[in-house]
Amino acid sequence: MRRTITGFSNPTVKFLRSLRDKKHRKAEQCFLAEGLRLLIDARETGRLPQMLVMATSRAPHPLLDALESDAAAAGGEVIEMDEALLAKVTGKDNPQAVCGVFAEFDTSLAGIDRVAAPIWLVAQALRDPGNLGTLLRTGDAVGAGGLILLDDCADPFSVEAVRASMGAIFTQSVAQATWAEFAAWLRQDGGQLVAASLRDAQPYRGAPYAAPCFILIGNESRGLPQEYEDACDLRVTLPMLGRADSLNAAVAGAVLAYEVLASFTPDP
Amino acid sequence: MRRTITGFSNPTVKFLRSLRDKKHRKAEQCFLAEGLRLLIDARETGRLPQMLVMATSRAPHPLLDALESDAAAAGGEVIEMDEALLAKVTGKDNPQAVCGVFAEFDTSLAGIDRVAAPIWLVAQALRDPGNLGTLLRTGDAVGAGGLILLDDCADPFSVEAVRASMGAIFTQSVAQATWAEFAAWLRQDGGQLVAASLRDAQPYRGAPYAAPCFILIGNESRGLPQEYEDACDLRVTLPMLGRADSLNAAVAGAVLAYEVLASFTPDP
Repeated sequence: MRRTITGFSNPTVKFLRSLRDKKHRKAEQCFLAEGLRLLIDARETGRLPQMLVMATSRAPHPLLDALESDAAAAGGEVIEMDEALLAKVTGKDNPQAVCGVFAEFDTSLAGIDRVAAPIWLVAQALRDPGNLGTLLRTGDAVGAGGLILLDDCADPFSVEAVRASMGAIFTQSVAQATWAEFAAWLRQDGGQLVAASLRDAQPYRGAPYAAPCFILIGNESRGLPQEYEDACDLRVTLPMLGRADSLNAAVAGAVLAYEVLASFTPDP
Repeated sequence: MRRTITGFSNPTVKFLRSLRDKKHRKAEQCFLAEGLRLLIDARETGRLPQMLVMATSRAPHPLLDALESDAAAAGGEVIEMDEALLAKVTGKDNPQAVCGVFAEFDTSLAGIDRVAAPIWLVAQALRDPGNLGTLLRTGDAVGAGGLILLDDCADPFSVEAVRASMGAIFTQSVAQATWAEFAAWLRQDGGQLVAASLRDAQPYRGAPYAAPCFILIGNESRGLPQEYEDACDLRVTLPMLGRADSLNAAVAGAVLAYEVLASFTPDP
């Protein structure tokens, strides 16, 4: 059954708005995903919203109908509100006609099955949620297993990261750990740790990548701490032909990930 | 000589604030670049600010001194204001201690010398200034000549694009044109137009790229119009192993650009 909300002071509206803030997401253990496309991706990977919020002005859509009945059958709440109210929830003038509240996933390293995929992305102190979401999206494209976030990274469940992931937040595993926890976990079993580096490195093209390959990406402004670089099994350089000495973090991760993927793929 | 500004209602403060807005940038034909690093990059490529703005609380820096004397010698204005006022100008709580106002460059296709570089990036209806700046930064890294913006793109002189370019706004050529203008210009002389596409395409790896190679990147949500894809000399596909059918625009451009660069580089 749908519940219609009309007032801005309604507790549900306040709850939804609060999910834009990390502190409240942590307290509630859930996050917001906006747009039909994202919600359909979630459903197809077996995730249903605890709460489905729809604009009364939405266009009818068979997949939205399916989503609504699945969410309701799983005990989820279905809510309607007018577009102006939804704009307050999403903080956007032209909100998508639908959004959903999902339970946050387990993000412990114990949830990572390293042999499930040949490539894993690892980001250290990544501050930009857009970069984080873009890395998830790239991971999905290269067949990576997921993204491991080291030290003080942006929140993978922020609205910006979820949006930039284009649904990959639902298909990629996500783990959060300190460097010490990750290093200990990594060395419990096989796995090659690779970073782009300017020191003691070989060309990224044709380097001896080995699965499972963990591609380590550094902070946007400071790059990787030297200790982390030193701990890598392989350091590679990308050509930097211009004045700058680094790439955008999501770009560097993607160029490396596609190179690793190509090295794992037999020539046609 | 330095001029000190103390009041929020000062016309110079209003002028500087107005440059966050595209309409005012077009009217004034100038743009804002923030941070010492960016201003040093500009100076090293021969561009000096018309107006140099420094926080009174800044740390002394020999390169800032050199910048100040060069800017003043070239007829530029040097202004000091306290950090709180600079925060109003930049719209940030913790503003960089220095920013500069630069004259906008010529962005006509006539300014593009296609044989000056083997790679050129071309973006169509790119809406995100961060993606735009990231493409400039990637272009600098791969030795591209510049970025050609087709149809209704974000403004390359916006504060966000300039920041994301990490100085490449000063090293890369930038042109703005309609598709019709660009297509006519391109075919006046040699040049290969390449796009990532799902239709009638060959693997991006090992495709027959030829310089000058123009890498065409489509709009973030709609991709390239079919007419534009049809006009390409080469259509290539990138592996998409997951659920999504596209990459972030700046990521796709970077993966392609690094592949084209590798194909132009003899094996070591």
